[in-house]
Amino acid sequence: MSHSASTESLRPGAGKPSPRFELLTFGDELLLGLTPNTHLTWIGAELGRRGVQLARNVTLNDEAAAIAAQFRESWARAEVIITTGGLGPTCDDNTREAVAGVLGQRLVFDPAIEHAITERFARFGRQLTPTANNRKQAYRFERGEVLPNANGTAPGLWVEQEGRVLVMLPGPPNELRPIFTEQVLPRLAARGLLTSGEAYVQIRTAGVGESLLETRLQPVFDRHPGLGLSYCAHLGQVDCRISSPDGRYQMDALQNIAQACATSLGEDFVCFGHASLVKVVGDQIRAQGHTLAVAESCSGGLLANSFADLRGAAKFFQGGIVSYSNEAKMLLLDCPECLLSQHGAVSAECAVAMAGGVAEQLGADYGLAITGFSGPAGGTGENPVGTIFLGLQAPGGVWSKKLTYPGPRSAVKERAVTAAIDWLRREVFQEARQAAGPAAN
Amino acid sequence: MSHSASTESLRPGAGKPSPRFELLTFGDELLLGLTPNTHLTWIGAELGRRGVQLARNVTLNDEAAAIAAQFRESWARAEVIITTGGLGPTCDDNTREAVAGVLGQRLVFDPAIEHAITERFARFGRQLTPTANNRKQAYRFERGEVLPNANGTAPGLWVEQEGRVLVMLPGPPNELRPIFTEQVLPRLAARGLLTSGEAYVQIRTAGVGESLLETRLQPVFDRHPGLGLSYCAHLGQVDCRISSPDGRYQMDALQNIAQACATSLGEDFVCFGHASLVKVVGDQIRAQGHTLAVAESCSGGLLANSFADLRGAAKFFQGGIVSYSNEAKMLLLDCPECLLSQHGAVSAECAVAMAGGVAEQLGADYGLAITGFSGPAGGTGENPVGTIFLGLQAPGGVWSKKLTYPGPRSAVKERAVTAAIDWLRREVFQEARQAAGPAAN
Repeated sequence: MSHSASTESLRPGAGKPSPRFELLTFGDELLLGLTPNTHLTWIGAELGRRGVQLARNVTLNDEAAAIAAQFRESWARAEVIITTGGLGPTCDDNTREAVAGVLGQRLVFDPAIEHAITERFARFGRQLTPTANNRKQAYRFERGEVLPNANGTAPGLWVEQEGRVLVMLPGPPNELRPIFTEQVLPRLAARGLLTSGEAYVQIRTAGVGESLLETRLQPVFDRHPGLGLSYCAHLGQVDCRISSPDGRYQMDALQNIAQACATSLGEDFVCFGHASLVKVVGDQIRAQGHTLAVAESCSGGLLANSFADLRGAAKFFQGGIVSYSNEAKMLLLDCPECLLSQHGAVSAECAVAMAGGVAEQLGADYGLAITGFSGPAGGTGENPVGTIFLGLQAPGGVWSKKLTYPGPRSAVKERAVTAAIDWLRREVFQEARQAAGPAAN
Repeated sequence: MSHSASTESLRPGAGKPSPRFELLTFGDELLLGLTPNTHLTWIGAELGRRGVQLARNVTLNDEAAAIAAQFRESWARAEVIITTGGLGPTCDDNTREAVAGVLGQRLVFDPAIEHAITERFARFGRQLTPTANNRKQAYRFERGEVLPNANGTAPGLWVEQEGRVLVMLPGPPNELRPIFTEQVLPRLAARGLLTSGEAYVQIRTAGVGESLLETRLQPVFDRHPGLGLSYCAHLGQVDCRISSPDGRYQMDALQNIAQACATSLGEDFVCFGHASLVKVVGDQIRAQGHTLAVAESCSGGLLANSFADLRGAAKFFQGGIVSYSNEAKMLLLDCPECLLSQHGAVSAECAVAMAGGVAEQLGADYGLAITGFSGPAGGTGENPVGTIFLGLQAPGGVWSKKLTYPGPRSAVKERAVTAAIDWLRREVFQEARQAAGPAAN
C-alpha cells in the first residue's frame, strides 16, 4: 500500500498551538506480531478527523516498571494521553497501579462498576457473582471518572489533573470504539482539545495521482489564501482535506470551496466525506433500480466481497463468479473455448466475455469482470505480471480496458479491484446523467 | 480478532537474559491512521520466531528533535534498535541526521550507493542521473555499513557501536522485508543476539480452544520438565510453541515432543511450523489429484479468495460462486426454488444444495459451501445473526454443519471461512487415510 500525507497540520483552533496527544498501547500480542495495532490506526484516524495529529504511539508490554516509566515521560510532555488494553479480567493489575503511582492517586473500589459487571453477567445468564478477576475491574482512580462500557466488563477511566487528561480504554475494539466515539470525543471537544465536528471538508477522488490532483486543484485554492490543505493517497485514490487553520473560513465557506473543486474535477470526483468508492457506486446502482453481477479470476473473490460487504447489498448485487480455471470460464460464463485458446484467459476478449457472461447468467444490468496476471508467477512477453484486463457490460454497451500495476500480488489485486469499481462508477453516473437529460449535464 | 500469548518468553540462549530490542517506526501516515503499522506486526513476528520479544515499539513523525530525543532514550537502554522509514527520496534528511547526532557520527557520501541507484535507474529506463533527492540517499554513517536494497533506491544502514546494534530500514515493505530476512537476521544471529534458526517447534491446531488444548497437551509436557510453552490463539486456531529456555533439550528432542503432541491431538493437529490451514488442505487435495469448487453467500468471496491466494491454486481450485441472491443460488447452483422457500437460504438444506451444486457445475471432486447471517442485520429467532451453515460434498458423501459465532460481521465471516476450510481438511485427510488402507490408520 502506498500512502502519503502532507506535513501541513489541520489544527482545530484559530492559530492556537495544537494540544499534544500521545497513545500508549499495551499488549504482548502487538509486540509479538500476533495481532495488528488497529488501535493506532483507528484512533489516529478518528483524531485526524477532529483536527489532531497524534504526536506519538508507544507499544509496550505489561511490565509495571516499564509502564510507569513510559507513562511518567508521556504525562510530562502531553496534554492528552490515551491508553488501550491492560484493563481486562485476565490482565495483571500492573497497568492501573503503575499509572496511579505516577499520578499520585489511590485506586478505590467502586460499587457502581461492580454492580454493572454483575448485571452484565446476569443478562448473559452466567453466574451472578463476578470472579475475583472481574472484581479487580471495579477499581477506579480516586479522583477520576468512569466511562461505562456497554459491551464488556472493564469500563474506561477518565482523569483530569494538572491541566492534563488521561483516558484509559479497554482493549477489545468493539468495546473501545463506542466508548471513544460516544464519550471520549465529546468530552475532549467540550474542553477545546479537538473540534466538535470534523475539522475539514474532505474531497474524495479516484483515478488521479496525488501530484496531478494538486496541480488541478491549485487554481481553486489560489483564489482562497490561507487554507490548510492535506492530501492522502491510498491505492489508486487520493483524498484532499481542506481546512482553515487560522479560522478565517467558516465551515460553509469551506464547503463552497470544496464544491468548486468537485466541479472542476468532473467525474474524477467521487464524494465529499468518507464514503467508500464501492458504497458510492452501489448506492447509485440501487437508486437507479439496476442490478450488478461480477466475474473475476486473479482477484479471487475480492471484487465480489467488496460489494457483498455493503449494507443492503442484496438489493442490487446478484452475485459473482470466481472463474479461476478455464473450465470455470467456459462452464459458468459461457466463454467460448476457441476464444480462450486464441486470445488466452488474460485478454481484452476474455474480459468482455466474462462481463457479458455473468450479466447474462444472472440477468443483471451491469456485468463487471477482472482477469489478469497478479503474480508472482505467470505473465507473457506482451502481458507481463501486473497486467490486468477489465470488462464492463452495461445497458449502454460493452467495453474492455487494459491496466498495468507494479508491486506485489496483494497490491496488484487491490488496485485491480479499485480500478474496476471506479470504472463502473463512471459508467453508472454517466448513464444516470444521460437518463436525466441534457439539462442535468 | 482474539489473540493471546503466554508471558513465558522463548529465549534464544541457555539461561542468558534476552537482549533488549526496540523498534522505532517513523511516519505521519501511521499516526494519522492512513496506513496500518505492518512493520510492527511483521518484524515482531519475525523476531518472535527467533526467540526475541520486542520490548517496545515507538511510532513518531519525522520531526528532528523528537527523533533525536527518542533515539537517545532507546539507545541508552536497548542492545538492538531497528528503525523503519524516513530514508526515502521524498523524506527530509531529518532521520539520518538526527540519529547521526546522537551516535556522534558524521554522514559520508558513498559513491557505491550512488552507483547502485544510477544502475537501478538505468535498468528501469529512466534518466541516467539520479535527482538531488536520490543523491541524499547515498549518505551512510562514517563508521557503519550499507545493507544493499535490491528493490528500491534507499539502502538499509547498519551500525555497531558501544556494544549495541542499530539497523535502519527503508519503509516500503517489499524493500524492507528481503533486507531484514536476507541480511539483518543472519547478522544478528552471528552476533548471538537471536537464534540462527527458529527458537521453537510450533504445533498448529484447529478446532480446539486454547484452554482445552492446554489440558490435552499437559500429559505430554508433564513427562518433559523445563519446557518453554507459549500458546497463540487466532480466529479458531491455536498454535503451541515448544522451546527449551535453559537449553536442556536440543531441537531434535523438541521435535520428538512435538510429534507426541501431534499424535495425541489426532485430526485437530494441522501441521508443524507456519503453513496456513488453507495451504495444508490445498496441498493435500492437489497431492490426491482431486479438484475443489466453492459456493458462498455471506462470506462474499473470501472463501474463494483463500484458495485463489495459494501459489499453484489453478492446479486444483476450479473456482467459486458467490451466490449472494436467491436468484444466483437458483441460476448458478441449481438450488430448487421450493427448497429456498421452504427452508430459507440460511439452512442446512441450502448449504448442502450449494455444495453439491457447485461441485456438479464445475465437475469438481469436492464442493464446499457457506451460507449464513453474518450481521449486522438479518437473522431469525431460530437462526440469529452469527448463525452459519456449512455444506460439504465429497467423494464419500455430502453433509451439513451448523455453527454460531458472536462478534462483529468481519469476525463472523473470517471464522466461518476458517471453519469451512478446517472441515474440508478433516474430510480430505480422512479420505486419504482410508484410501491408504487400514495399516495407515
